[in-house]
Amino acid sequence: MIANTPHPPYYAVIFSSIRSQNVEGYSEVNALMNQLVFKQDGFLGMEAVQSELGVTISYWRDLESIKRWKENLDHQDAQIKGRKTWYSHYKVRIAKVERDYAFTT
Amino acid sequence: MIANTPHPPYYAVIFSSIRSQNVEGYSEVNALMNQLVFKQDGFLGMEAVQSELGVTISYWRDLESIKRWKENLDHQDAQIKGRKTWYSHYKVRIAKVERDYAFTT
Repeated sequence: MIANTPHPPYYAVIFSSIRSQNVEGYSEVNALMNQLVFKQDGFLGMEAVQSELGVTISYWRDLESIKRWKENLDHQDAQIKGRKTWYSHYKVRIAKVERDYAFTT
Repeated sequence: MIANTPHPPYYAVIFSSIRSQNVEGYSEVNALMNQLVFKQDGFLGMEAVQSELGVTISYWRDLESIKRWKENLDHQDAQIKGRKTWYSHYKVRIAKVERDYAFTT
């Protein structure tokens, strides 16, 4: 689903990743993170697509809410497991959405 | 592949889409657009992932180079075909990347 975000400005965190071969424990932690992130103050929506490359974009009200989510203890634990186990490479980009427009049939 | 972008600031154009059933002519036009975009002045890289939801993120030096690509005549033709044929919904977000960091094994 395309995230139903409010009028700009708001923030996007673009997480682009290449997985390792090791998926041990991934599904459980990913499901938990999805549950938790939706409860975060300032969270506006998410878009996630996975093929060889994974791209997850989460949308946020402001930099403070992004920072709080990054520092969430369960999320920190998941980040450590991610670097140890599930990802061979990733890049995180924090971007301010200045403008958006939509098309629908 | 994760795009090898320079140090921020730079811009991201996030194109999130839901396809229609009609794929007629899509591959050819998509291949042509990929060729053309890489030649655009100010283009920095691209990440594209497709499942039920499609997400294509292109990275750009500045708003001017984004505008020039949007107004490119071949690209305009593709945009019209996209709305007529290939997409049932899409959203475009223009965002300024303020910060990024990477992990690699």
